[in-house]
Amino acid sequence: MTTELKQTFCSIITIGDELLIGQTIDTNSAWIAQQLNPIGIPVKRRIAVGDNKQEILDALERERNDSDIIIITGGLGPTSDDITKPVLCEYFNSGLIENAAVLKHIMSYFDKRNRPMLQSNLMQAMVPEVCEVLFNEEGTAPGMLFKEKGQVIISLPGVPNEMQYIISTHVLSYLQANFKTPNFIHRTLVTSGEGESFIAERLKDFEATLPPEIKLAYLPKINIVKLRLTATDIEEGILETHFHRLKEILHNITIIDADLELEFVLGQLLVRNQKTISVAESCTGGSIASRITSIKGSSAYFKGGIVPYSIESKQNVLEVSKDTIDRFGVVSEETVIEMAQKCREKFKSDFALSVSGYLEKKDHDNSVWIGLNSSSTKLTKKIIAPYDREKNTILVANAALNLLRLFILKQLSASS
Amino acid sequence: MTTELKQTFCSIITIGDELLIGQTIDTNSAWIAQQLNPIGIPVKRRIAVGDNKQEILDALERERNDSDIIIITGGLGPTSDDITKPVLCEYFNSGLIENAAVLKHIMSYFDKRNRPMLQSNLMQAMVPEVCEVLFNEEGTAPGMLFKEKGQVIISLPGVPNEMQYIISTHVLSYLQANFKTPNFIHRTLVTSGEGESFIAERLKDFEATLPPEIKLAYLPKINIVKLRLTATDIEEGILETHFHRLKEILHNITIIDADLELEFVLGQLLVRNQKTISVAESCTGGSIASRITSIKGSSAYFKGGIVPYSIESKQNVLEVSKDTIDRFGVVSEETVIEMAQKCREKFKSDFALSVSGYLEKKDHDNSVWIGLNSSSTKLTKKIIAPYDREKNTILVANAALNLLRLFILKQLSASS
Repeated sequence: MTTELKQTFCSIITIGDELLIGQTIDTNSAWIAQQLNPIGIPVKRRIAVGDNKQEILDALERERNDSDIIIITGGLGPTSDDITKPVLCEYFNSGLIENAAVLKHIMSYFDKRNRPMLQSNLMQAMVPEVCEVLFNEEGTAPGMLFKEKGQVIISLPGVPNEMQYIISTHVLSYLQANFKTPNFIHRTLVTSGEGESFIAERLKDFEATLPPEIKLAYLPKINIVKLRLTATDIEEGILETHFHRLKEILHNITIIDADLELEFVLGQLLVRNQKTISVAESCTGGSIASRITSIKGSSAYFKGGIVPYSIESKQNVLEVSKDTIDRFGVVSEETVIEMAQKCREKFKSDFALSVSGYLEKKDHDNSVWIGLNSSSTKLTKKIIAPYDREKNTILVANAALNLLRLFILKQLSASS
Repeated sequence: MTTELKQTFCSIITIGDELLIGQTIDTNSAWIAQQLNPIGIPVKRRIAVGDNKQEILDALERERNDSDIIIITGGLGPTSDDITKPVLCEYFNSGLIENAAVLKHIMSYFDKRNRPMLQSNLMQAMVPEVCEVLFNEEGTAPGMLFKEKGQVIISLPGVPNEMQYIISTHVLSYLQANFKTPNFIHRTLVTSGEGESFIAERLKDFEATLPPEIKLAYLPKINIVKLRLTATDIEEGILETHFHRLKEILHNITIIDADLELEFVLGQLLVRNQKTISVAESCTGGSIASRITSIKGSSAYFKGGIVPYSIESKQNVLEVSKDTIDRFGVVSEETVIEMAQKCREKFKSDFALSVSGYLEKKDHDNSVWIGLNSSSTKLTKKIIAPYDREKNTILVANAALNLLRLFILKQLSASS
């Protein structure tokens, strides 16, 4: 039994020529959507328009037809291409007034950084009379909230940390207090090892029996497919039941039953088992180490890494024997075995991963060897890297991190 | 003197619930815009909608009011949440027919990968009768091109490498052959060292004297500001003259006069001067090495790196003396001096960069030390990292790469 509740929708309008010429990738919209979903406000549409008054007004007018909440980002900077504030003043027929709190904050902001202040910075303390100011502790452009005809229009700076600060501190609590929202929940399963269409084949019966309030989506990435169940207005327990069935069907290819990165999952596993790792990565050039250390608290289990990018450094720094490299080549099973072993010895870690291969299409046969070393194991895996340099780096790093994850799980299940 | 030419516009519609709930960051739109701009087709608007028939139809209808070319990505996969093809069939009132070339390709695609084929994969060879098929060598979902009333509607898979393949191979040449476009050019200057409002202050007179056909935009990033001049329908020489003035005004903070990454610029500098580098990075965890090696051909100048993430590995692997660390601490000028020196010795490179610091707000004082070592120099720099872990990593890596870049330039100018 569901109560009748009008669904509240949000539209996101991002403003800036840089978005339309492809100079900037819009990460703000995704972040905002991630915050709004848990409080039951789905994003209806996302629109990117240029620094152009008519385009901004058109987008605003159109989105107000369909959404209750419009979040606008960008165009609030101190320079002349930033036109959002004057456009909103015109739209809401409002003059500007100086906001004392914002002015004080701007002055202290520059004072703290020991930077002189300009007239253009002071102008940021001028806000539309009819708006509610959303204080921006992280920068100088305040957010602005307008109310009209039961709708809320929120204008925020486009600088990600400033936008994020204002949403977290002011916007979410305001929306929760002012909009009644339905129960809107997601559960995500992350898998690796099977293509989208194969998973779909395995899930045919499962999909056929899903109630209409639950939707299944496939999100394929580089050698990873995420499966997402979305439910509107049903009890969490019902979603859980279906999610549990999904996990059972795909148990053999599941990485984790939450929308988390592989490096996070591996980190948790290492912490729980009090194990440490190190990495010796050649072709991935530091990106495995960099992904591991992107996780807060990784210093508890990551001892360090070596990027032996040249052949000499494989010999001189990592101390792989010249003989092994000469006989088998830098990209070989024998070399990654020795790389992982030397790495583990140097860093005194429980596990070591090693990688050596070719990531560019024209290089040789595009093959990459991955090694894993522990006190009791020498494991290797060969993979083919069919994409471009950037995607292959992700592919290989995923494969290496997952090799270690699966190995630890296998050890655990063997010892239990 | 400009000839009167109707401006051709493009709208991009991206389809997928994952875009609206923030699970996927849309990188396709930016990439597409980057390809369209050089051929004189600006993007008017970008819209993201969910896997919802009415939303897709509404977006298409609306964009056809304003744009001549509509590029749609996403929703062409083999699973049931992929509805773009049936929606387009309905919109263009078209049935499906089997395309023999696509069918053959799909069969050989699975055959080569030694994977069994499913009915859902074969269905991808069924295409709308009224469309022109854009062959997809990289995957199984073909692109589709529809013509109606002088407008072109193109539907492409959302998987980035497949979309990119079809655009590069089929779409760009088609658009160039079928649309007359005006001259539409950009020049970008990348700067570091001054905030957006300060640069704007310095550029006041410059901006005032720009002709109306040239627009200046400020694109602030983490400790980098990009300045972009966009010109429509004027001679390239005129834009060059203004861009030259811009470079002169900002010469002291310019990194490069093209929209290129710092690691690319540094790489070029190292190649030209036949110098090599290595890095010893603690808090940045491999991300400097990973950025350096993201550049094709970096093996010519990058010898390798060490990520001594633990204190023991700073001593045991990098061989920084225990005495230095005990006396001055791991985050100290003395430690990064020794880190850079040991790194250069180990990798036998001309230069070595080192980094040690705290990237999380609650850690100590958020300070990071950067060291640079060459046969004749020990240079250090202390910076404060005020953001979160991810942004601070970018900030510190930028600072380190730029420290080396400036040092090489200074050496060059002293020796010339």
